[in-house]
Amino acid sequence: MNLIILKENLKQGLDVVERITGKNLTLPILNNVLISVKKNLLKLSTTDLEVGINYYTLAKIEQEGEIAIPAKLILSLINSLPNEKIILKEKEQTLNISCDNYKVKIKGQSPDDFPIIPKIETKDFIEINTIPFYKGISQVVEFSSLSQTKPEISGVYFNLQKNTLKIVATDSFRLAEKTLYFKNGPAIEKETSFIIPQRTARELINVTAEKEEKLKMYLSSSQVLFELPFPENNQPQIQLISRLIEGKYPNYQEIIPQKYETQVIVSREEFINQIKTTSLFSGKTSEIKIKVDAKKNKMELFAQASEIGENKSEISIKTEGKSTETSFNFKFLLDGLTNIKSDEVIFGINGIEGPAILKPVGDTSYLYVVMPIKSS
Amino acid sequence: MNLIILKENLKQGLDVVERITGKNLTLPILNNVLISVKKNLLKLSTTDLEVGINYYTLAKIEQEGEIAIPAKLILSLINSLPNEKIILKEKEQTLNISCDNYKVKIKGQSPDDFPIIPKIETKDFIEINTIPFYKGISQVVEFSSLSQTKPEISGVYFNLQKNTLKIVATDSFRLAEKTLYFKNGPAIEKETSFIIPQRTARELINVTAEKEEKLKMYLSSSQVLFELPFPENNQPQIQLISRLIEGKYPNYQEIIPQKYETQVIVSREEFINQIKTTSLFSGKTSEIKIKVDAKKNKMELFAQASEIGENKSEISIKTEGKSTETSFNFKFLLDGLTNIKSDEVIFGINGIEGPAILKPVGDTSYLYVVMPIKSS
Repeated sequence: MNLIILKENLKQGLDVVERITGKNLTLPILNNVLISVKKNLLKLSTTDLEVGINYYTLAKIEQEGEIAIPAKLILSLINSLPNEKIILKEKEQTLNISCDNYKVKIKGQSPDDFPIIPKIETKDFIEINTIPFYKGISQVVEFSSLSQTKPEISGVYFNLQKNTLKIVATDSFRLAEKTLYFKNGPAIEKETSFIIPQRTARELINVTAEKEEKLKMYLSSSQVLFELPFPENNQPQIQLISRLIEGKYPNYQEIIPQKYETQVIVSREEFINQIKTTSLFSGKTSEIKIKVDAKKNKMELFAQASEIGENKSEISIKTEGKSTETSFNFKFLLDGLTNIKSDEVIFGINGIEGPAILKPVGDTSYLYVVMPIKSS
Repeated sequence: MNLIILKENLKQGLDVVERITGKNLTLPILNNVLISVKKNLLKLSTTDLEVGINYYTLAKIEQEGEIAIPAKLILSLINSLPNEKIILKEKEQTLNISCDNYKVKIKGQSPDDFPIIPKIETKDFIEINTIPFYKGISQVVEFSSLSQTKPEISGVYFNLQKNTLKIVATDSFRLAEKTLYFKNGPAIEKETSFIIPQRTARELINVTAEKEEKLKMYLSSSQVLFELPFPENNQPQIQLISRLIEGKYPNYQEIIPQKYETQVIVSREEFINQIKTTSLFSGKTSEIKIKVDAKKNKMELFAQASEIGENKSEISIKTEGKSTETSFNFKFLLDGLTNIKSDEVIFGINGIEGPAILKPVGDTSYLYVVMPIKSS
């Protein structure tokens, strides 16, 4: 291997692929990035065996070759080099990196020891605009279950149907659903659904964030490939290949309430502020009481911790339905509210046992379901 | 107690005094802020028994009184309140805080349980401009020894003499000295020196940072008081009272080298970059080798970690004296260089055993002494 590359290009690629390395202590080879040089492209690859990333970048290639190199070390090194042009040469499983005034040798490993990142067996793909896609995943990804006892809800659920993609996550205490519409896109002929690991969803956000591109999604029975092309020539620039989580996602539609005993419309910012203040007195249970007075169009938040003190605060609201007094985990309310972007939110409550809902006013594409705390 | 205060005024005061609370687990009263109301002033006081802070702020006082309240809780609460005007009322050792829509009760403790923050017995003071003062302390404070086996070097040393104030810290591996000049200030009649705890020095920086004021320093045999006045009327706004560390500060002047076997003048930024790159290969000892070639006017940095790799890099320098090859802890070099503000630095080396020095070019007010690593 022998090539010249711009620092910025190499750094951008390493930034993307390095993130998934270093988390597996039993297989040290996974701490490496595989650098492969072929024709006029440099390819950087990493994998944690659940998700793999390939990143392609242009370089001036003198000689082809391959080497596996500690990913965090080479990223730190490239970040610290001041020069624009960097020369990479591989010799006897050592990578020689040089530029004006610097001569670095990094010991590598054989490319044969690096796990193969699988290829996908299909040529059919669906094209998605990256901007709504990464924003949509961001609104649900944090609500996947952290427990591995029900692996199917530890991931993020994708459901494709006609001209919609629904993205869903739940930990059984709350659930978020985002719906994306393919306005000019392909109509999906057959309803398709799959579950990707939460890590994959996070990397997808990282790879697509702030980029206005078309993302290609290829699906096989056990894997999914997301591919971002070079804007110039539609050739792949970033490929993210993930295993799918096996199992059947719960029939979550059943728990989304369609009607509410009490419907509140409230300023999102004011609601967030009052929850934050009240939470200071919620104690270990994180419980705050919410009392809706349907006649006076007032909502009262209350929490009390016997040794510390209490807070009572009040917001003006619009109400439909009946008065109620229900307890919630304040963190779950805040999580929902911070993922809603509208000025006003709809807060639908179904008594002390039924699921409540938070959704933006004037936008049906997002909803957040939260269970109340049964009062003791 | 009964008063009305602007949120911003209360918040600013709590921000200053809250920092030293919550670090003593055996005396829970120290987690409190003592709120005292007298005439037209609200006073906030905290102490960790080593350093105490009083903060005075204006309020509309209806009734005088005193109460001790958990400091972090009330700061979080005040931060979360949206309103400008806040009403504080004390009743039966509970603080009632209210503003539009919010009613908060916080359980307090008797002011009698709060430790007395001592007063200083002298009326003599020295006046110091805050800007050079906090900048100067910032350049040395991090080098105090963390070990308590030699308490005198765990603090920051102040030496007043004629029209200079020297501020010094050392952990016996390196030493920093900053000299401030009172251009129009009082000439100190008798040399005076004292040692303040590192915590006190940090709080002094926090209290004075970015403020262009005159700080008054009052000294007694066992304590020092730093006082910042209200700009309007010269009355005290912030008082920081600290115990002094007993013991004799080492005669540090002896180890500051006055001559160097090798003198290097080098670009600070380039030196820092090359140290950072080289440090990636320094291994557990943090050791990097520095080779000065006096004939070629070149300095070479080198480090090698057998399993990982190596870096060799080179900088053009100006040299006086002889060639040398010396090893240093790269962290100690970086610590010194980041506290120097000039574009070029003087690096004076005294062979493999003598103390080396780093200082800015064109500024004699700062110096940093560092011991080499004796090569194995």
